[in-house]
Amino acid sequence: MDTTAHERPRVLLHDPTLRDGQHAVGHQLDAGQLRAYAIAANAAGVPVVEVGHGNGLGASSLQIGRAALDDATMLTTVRETLTSSRMGVFMAPGWGTAKDIAAAVRHGADIVRIAAHCTEADVTERHLDVVRELGAEAQGVLLMSHMAEPRKLAEQCALMVRFGAQAVGIMDSAGYYLPADVTERVAAIASAVDVPLIFHGHNNLGLAVANSLAAVDAGASVIDATARGFGAGAGNTQLEVLVAVLDRRGVSTGIGLREVLAAADIAAARVMKAPPSIDSTAVASGLAGVFSGFKRPVLEAARAGGVDPIDLFLALGERQVVAGQEDLITDVARRLKVATG
Amino acid sequence: MDTTAHERPRVLLHDPTLRDGQHAVGHQLDAGQLRAYAIAANAAGVPVVEVGHGNGLGASSLQIGRAALDDATMLTTVRETLTSSRMGVFMAPGWGTAKDIAAAVRHGADIVRIAAHCTEADVTERHLDVVRELGAEAQGVLLMSHMAEPRKLAEQCALMVRFGAQAVGIMDSAGYYLPADVTERVAAIASAVDVPLIFHGHNNLGLAVANSLAAVDAGASVIDATARGFGAGAGNTQLEVLVAVLDRRGVSTGIGLREVLAAADIAAARVMKAPPSIDSTAVASGLAGVFSGFKRPVLEAARAGGVDPIDLFLALGERQVVAGQEDLITDVARRLKVATG
Repeated sequence: MDTTAHERPRVLLHDPTLRDGQHAVGHQLDAGQLRAYAIAANAAGVPVVEVGHGNGLGASSLQIGRAALDDATMLTTVRETLTSSRMGVFMAPGWGTAKDIAAAVRHGADIVRIAAHCTEADVTERHLDVVRELGAEAQGVLLMSHMAEPRKLAEQCALMVRFGAQAVGIMDSAGYYLPADVTERVAAIASAVDVPLIFHGHNNLGLAVANSLAAVDAGASVIDATARGFGAGAGNTQLEVLVAVLDRRGVSTGIGLREVLAAADIAAARVMKAPPSIDSTAVASGLAGVFSGFKRPVLEAARAGGVDPIDLFLALGERQVVAGQEDLITDVARRLKVATG
Repeated sequence: MDTTAHERPRVLLHDPTLRDGQHAVGHQLDAGQLRAYAIAANAAGVPVVEVGHGNGLGASSLQIGRAALDDATMLTTVRETLTSSRMGVFMAPGWGTAKDIAAAVRHGADIVRIAAHCTEADVTERHLDVVRELGAEAQGVLLMSHMAEPRKLAEQCALMVRFGAQAVGIMDSAGYYLPADVTERVAAIASAVDVPLIFHGHNNLGLAVANSLAAVDAGASVIDATARGFGAGAGNTQLEVLVAVLDRRGVSTGIGLREVLAAADIAAARVMKAPPSIDSTAVASGLAGVFSGFKRPVLEAARAGGVDPIDLFLALGERQVVAGQEDLITDVARRLKVATG
C-alpha cells in the first residue's frame, strides 16, 4: 500500500498536529511530546510538520493562553528531529509580527503560512513579502472561510498570490462545511489562481475526511490533516485515515500507511489525553459556525456565567464572532444570562 | 431547527445505540443504561430504538459473548419507556430462531430486522414470513455488503422484498465504503425494489456521516445512526451529527436537535466508557473489510498469539472472513505467527 519514494505525490499532506492540537491541551505540549511525534511523522514520510502555539507565532499570551514553551524552543526542538519532512509555522498578523517570522526562519521553518480572516487578505501583503525575502515558502490561508461566498474567497486568494503567496487556500475553522460547500469554494479558487490550493478541515459535523476528499476532487493539492484528528474543537481531518482513503482512491501521498499508523499511535499515547470526539457542544459550534479554537473559552464562560454552552455557541454564531474576539465571549454569555434568566 | 410534529419526515432515523453499541462493551449494558437512553431517545422523537445483544436475538453465547441481560429483559425494559418511538430488534438466522422472533414480538418489538450475509438472502425467507405473520414490520438487511457488486445486492434485496420484507437495505459492516461506493449500490437497489431502503454505516474510514448522506441522496430513506456513534469497531454514523447535517440540508427527520443532543449526552455519561474513535486497528479493519464486531476478538487473538493486530486484520481481510466465523480468528493468528515468526 505504500507509494514508492520516487513517485511524486499528487496530494501533499501538511500536518499541524503539533500546532492545531495545542488548542486541545491549552497550548501545553512539552519538548518530549513534540520530539516524539515529530520523529514518528518524519519517519512516516509526512511532507510537512507544522509546530507552534495553537494560534501561531507570537500568540502565546495571557488572553489567548500561554504556551508551555516559547516559539524558539518549539521550533528548534522539532527542527532537530526532521531529516526529510519540512517544518511549517503558522502566523496571523496581529498576533505575530515580521520579527516572529524572521526568528522562525532562523530556527529552521521552511514554510510560513500567513493567515487572515476570509475577507481581509489585504493584511497579509507585508508578511508574505517578508517570508519571500527570507527565502522560505510563503503560503496564504483564509480563516473562517464559510463566512464568505466562493467568489469572494477566489478574489481574496488571488490577492494573496499577487502578494507572493506560493500556495493559498481556505480553512474551515468552524467545522461548518458540507462536502458540496467545499467543492464549490475550492473550484472557484482553482479557476482564479495558478498555485497549489490548500484545504484545512475540522470535524464538528463528522465530515472532515469527506470534505478533504471533496477538496482534492475540486483541485486542492495541499491538505491539512493531523494524527487521530488532534486539533481544536472536534479536531481536524484524521491524517492516517486520509492516507488510507486516498490510497484506496489511487491518490499518492508519499506517506507509508504502516508508518503513519505508528505515528498516530505515538500521538495517541504521548501527545493527547484522548482523541478528539464530536460532543454536543462541538455539533452546536459547527452548526453555528463558531471558531473551533473557542471551545475551551466558551465552555469556561458558560460555566462561569451559568448559561447553557449550546445556547452560547448558537448566540456567538448569530453574532458572527471570529477568532481574535475572545473578549466578546464572556460579554455574549452575560447578555444571554440577562436575556434568559 | 426542529421540524414540526405534523411534518412527515423524509428520512427515518433508526437508532441501534442499544444494540450495535453492545459490541463496544462486550454486550454488558444493564437495565439502568437501557432505560436511561431509551427515555431520552423517545423524548427526542427518535422514530425507532433498536435493542438487543450486539449480534441480535438469540446470539448471547459463550463463543460470541454472553450479554448481561437476556433478550426478554432487554426488550421489556426498553418497551416500558417508549411512548412514541417504535422498538426494533435485529436477528441473523443461525444465531436467532423463529421462537426468538415470536418472543420479541410478544415483548413489544414493532420492527424485526432479518439479516443475512450479502449473498445469502435466501436464508431470510422463513423468518421474514414469521415476522409478517406475527404482524410486526419485517425488514431485510445484507451484512458485509461491500463484498458484493451493486447488481448482486439489488438482486438480493429484490429477493427479500419478494419474501415479504417491507424495507430492505445494506450494512457497511466493515466500515469499508467511500461515498461513491454507497451511491452506486443504493442507486442499484433503488432501481430494483419499491420499498424504503436502509443504510447502516460504520466509521472506520471517517466517512459514516458522508456515506449516510450519499445513501440519502441515492434514495435511501431509513438511515441507522447511534448516539455519539456508539457501536462496533470505530462506531456507527453519529445520530446527533446526522440530525444536524440533514437539518442543514433541509431534510426533515422529525427529531429535535436540542433533544437529540441531550440524549447523546446521556449516552456519553451513562452508556459508554468513551465515545468510539478511529484507532489504527480500526483503520486497518476498515481498509481490509473485516466485520466491525470482530474488533475485540481480533485484538485478543493478536495479543494471545503474539502477532501485530494490524497484520491480523489485513490477513483476515485477505481470507474474506465474515461474521459468524469467529473461530477462524485464532486460527489465522496462529498461521500468521508461523509465517512471520
